[in-house]
Amino acid sequence: MSTVDLNCDLGESFGAYTIGMDEAVIPFVTSVNVACGWHAGDPLIMDRTVALAKKHGVAVGAHPGFPDLMGFGRRPMTVTPQEAGAYVKYQVGALQAFAQGHGLALQHVKPHGALYNMAAKDEGLAIGICEAIASVDKNLILMGLAGSVMLEAAKKAGLKTASEVFADRAYNDDGSLVNRKLPGAVIHDPEIAVQRAVKMAKEGKVISINGKEISITADSICVHGDNAQAVELVKSIRQALEANGLTVKNFG
Amino acid sequence: MSTVDLNCDLGESFGAYTIGMDEAVIPFVTSVNVACGWHAGDPLIMDRTVALAKKHGVAVGAHPGFPDLMGFGRRPMTVTPQEAGAYVKYQVGALQAFAQGHGLALQHVKPHGALYNMAAKDEGLAIGICEAIASVDKNLILMGLAGSVMLEAAKKAGLKTASEVFADRAYNDDGSLVNRKLPGAVIHDPEIAVQRAVKMAKEGKVISINGKEISITADSICVHGDNAQAVELVKSIRQALEANGLTVKNFG
Amino acid sequence: MSTVDLNCDLGESFGAYTIGMDEAVIPFVTSVNVACGWHAGDPLIMDRTVALAKKHGVAVGAHPGFPDLMGFGRRPMTVTPQEAGAYVKYQVGALQAFAQGHGLALQHVKPHGALYNMAAKDEGLAIGICEAIASVDKNLILMGLAGSVMLEAAKKAGLKTASEVFADRAYNDDGSLVNRKLPGAVIHDPEIAVQRAVKMAKEGKVISINGKEISITADSICVHGDNAQAVELVKSIRQALEANGLTVKNFG
Amino acid sequence: MSTVDLNCDLGESFGAYTIGMDEAVIPFVTSVNVACGWHAGDPLIMDRTVALAKKHGVAVGAHPGFPDLMGFGRRPMTVTPQEAGAYVKYQVGALQAFAQGHGLALQHVKPHGALYNMAAKDEGLAIGICEAIASVDKNLILMGLAGSVMLEAAKKAGLKTASEVFADRAYNDDGSLVNRKLPGAVIHDPEIAVQRAVKMAKEGKVISINGKEISITADSICVHGDNAQAVELVKSIRQALEANGLTVKNFG
Repeated sequence: MSTVDLNCDLGESFGAYTIGMDEAVIPFVTSVNVACGWHAGDPLIMDRTVALAKKHGVAVGAHPGFPDLMGFGRRPMTVTPQEAGAYVKYQVGALQAFAQGHGLALQHVKPHGALYNMAAKDEGLAIGICEAIASVDKNLILMGLAGSVMLEAAKKAGLKTASEVFADRAYNDDGSLVNRKLPGAVIHDPEIAVQRAVKMAKEGKVISINGKEISITADSICVHGDNAQAVELVKSIRQALEANGLTVKNFG
Repeated sequence: MSTVDLNCDLGESFGAYTIGMDEAVIPFVTSVNVACGWHAGDPLIMDRTVALAKKHGVAVGAHPGFPDLMGFGRRPMTVTPQEAGAYVKYQVGALQAFAQGHGLALQHVKPHGALYNMAAKDEGLAIGICEAIASVDKNLILMGLAGSVMLEAAKKAGLKTASEVFADRAYNDDGSLVNRKLPGAVIHDPEIAVQRAVKMAKEGKVISINGKEISITADSICVHGDNAQAVELVKSIRQALEANGLTVKNFG
Repeated sequence: MSTVDLNCDLGESFGAYTIGMDEAVIPFVTSVNVACGWHAGDPLIMDRTVALAKKHGVAVGAHPGFPDLMGFGRRPMTVTPQEAGAYVKYQVGALQAFAQGHGLALQHVKPHGALYNMAAKDEGLAIGICEAIASVDKNLILMGLAGSVMLEAAKKAGLKTASEVFADRAYNDDGSLVNRKLPGAVIHDPEIAVQRAVKMAKEGKVISINGKEISITADSICVHGDNAQAVELVKSIRQALEANGLTVKNFG
Repeated sequence: MSTVDLNCDLGESFGAYTIGMDEAVIPFVTSVNVACGWHAGDPLIMDRTVALAKKHGVAVGAHPGFPDLMGFGRRPMTVTPQEAGAYVKYQVGALQAFAQGHGLALQHVKPHGALYNMAAKDEGLAIGICEAIASVDKNLILMGLAGSVMLEAAKKAGLKTASEVFADRAYNDDGSLVNRKLPGAVIHDPEIAVQRAVKMAKEGKVISINGKEISITADSICVHGDNAQAVELVKSIRQALEANGLTVKNFG
């Protein structure tokens, strides 16, 4: 592949509470996933975040999550496919209004946290979510875990997809992520993370935790803007991608 | 005037909690104001309510309120115009997604409860709200209290307006509503309410609490579906309007 | 056994929303589980419900649930034992303040909905909850599913326990409840429910779904005040218990 | 006076969100006001904050606020005295459970933000709050704005009181705080703030914004732990108070 997207979760502050270095990280990414007020974010912050994305010419996507601000949307909740679909539709619509307010259209939807992880494996949930998104706007692109059932469900629902990969996470031989609780699941060495990002984007390959080279579709690489170190890594990834002849741009 | 709209607040249930006889009242109205999950309503109920409106051929509007489910959005909160605008935008967008899902466009926006009452008098707040709505969609009609600054603000923001009147509320000489705490503020006799509705819709006139005939613009009459008695009143108002040669239809 | 308690969930209304026939059912029960504002209930309703219980001489317990008003606390959420404990402690404390305001002490704590069901099987969660309760007040009695690990955890934490049984639910041979999704899980015939209640309370026995007589500890029978029919059943159960020589009183 | 208390708001983080340098400021204060989960704080944080206070031998008070996490409890809401009382009771009870869990009793209650400011002037609201607190525990001390109707209401309700003063705020001739919107309302020079703190604590006097020396009761001085600079000011105030022969200790 010759192009790849860099995406980052943004707009995760809430009221008087600030999280993330949004202004510092946005110059280096090409798509942002904006929290929609359920697990993070609030209307003022959504508006400000969409404005920031517009200023930097970055594509905007919705980042809907569970109704669990206290748990930051990271805790699995048992919901029906219909509930999940309605929750996503609600949040996508809310963000869409702010995008409309700034003359933008949303590029994509990427479910957040536990909802993302659950829908990566649970076909019913994935279908509920994807059909809900398609009913709002067939042009929205579903961003989901590379190789997951979520992407299959999106295609069935008539949505285009963006396969997401992680530079700092280990993969199993079947292309799934190594469980965070297992040793080696997270790659802490920035240089290795950068190398993996380049290999995934350029060759569509990654070395699994067992040392096997496996295929992976890398439409977008997930990066983080939580702290100064994270922002440095994003910068390094971006530079390395471009130094290796890749065009970094959004997929919309 | 020869036409008038009948509007009713709908979709105010929440989770396991049910309020309102939505199915019973909807055959008699022409526009519905759908709660958007902040003071009432939730995503599943919003979806169901939009579907119900579609089935009955009734126009759908957003009914955004304060973030106060415990107080049902009836308690004044001090918010800035910017906050009010962002809150309305968020809720309008959320409902819009459900409307899109059913192939409908929203007809109007009518703020709820304390937000409605505050914006009827506070020009800054009204402008904040109306500019927010206009930024989402210039075709949305602002429904507000007849004669209020809210309608002026809407016009300034480039929105069309619908003047709302109340069959069961007394009016002051200046066209404002008599404060609910004062005697005579609420009209309890259904027959008198019906007669007032007809007079406002047909002649654009109402008798004030001081016995004076005053002018009032009645684009839409607010009715309620809270209980069986309320639904009976709606039925009576509708029949009386039609018996008096008025066409009852939405303003969109 | 010669005595048995009848318990009912109460105070599940919220703001403008009403659920349950609290006034109708309370004359027939001896303990009430009061919602604490997370899955249902609010401060005004908690105060009113404690006052109602006091008026009827009924023992008051806390009914803490997940932070999920939209799902009425019925949806499993993945929480740590520490989170579960802190959530229960918070809610027990909140209700305790209203009890203190009416000169009452809380008799018991009964987790609600999904939290109840999860803690009935998950020892870690059960211990987290029970140690939290014990740290607030060692005299609080833990009400939990008869035969469950929750009651074992309570004993380990130094709490007294009340074993709860259900008149309208089928039991497996091992004393666990038949999954609601399976046929025959809920007993719809009021006469049979009454008979089962009496047999459990008097003999400590119940006929399992496979027709086997099994032992069960019935300190308290759970009844419902959701609607007029449910209240009738409570009345019938109470009368049958007393007609069979059982003293119906709380366990505190 | 020879003794004075230094109080600070603590435990204002929420879920994944952190606010305040709790660990840095606590060594210098003698009482802390712990957020109770409505405008800030959550059960895990409440537990941790009470543990921190215990470790430092600092007195713990409840800091109840409006149900407005998005506005950090700083926005006025129209509530009845009965609602305000129930909201305070709920939050005091919740914190009390964590205090009990650590073998502590609450020293005081200090309403937060808009609730504090409104109750300082609105006698009905103040009485609603104070009677609610008294009904939970007559030994709780009400901390309120020096000279405000809140303190009068507390006395009527049978509560002891602690008069709170601000080192960094200007006072009117009548002892009320100068409105934040007016010039000179906030004192930005740390040295002047320290001098004013000492004068209020030692002499019970403060120079008003009009240059008049007025009397003021300073049982407790409010300080902040929002950032490193604020913590430095707390340290300076504490040192200056002790250097001037005052004993800094809680009022409980």
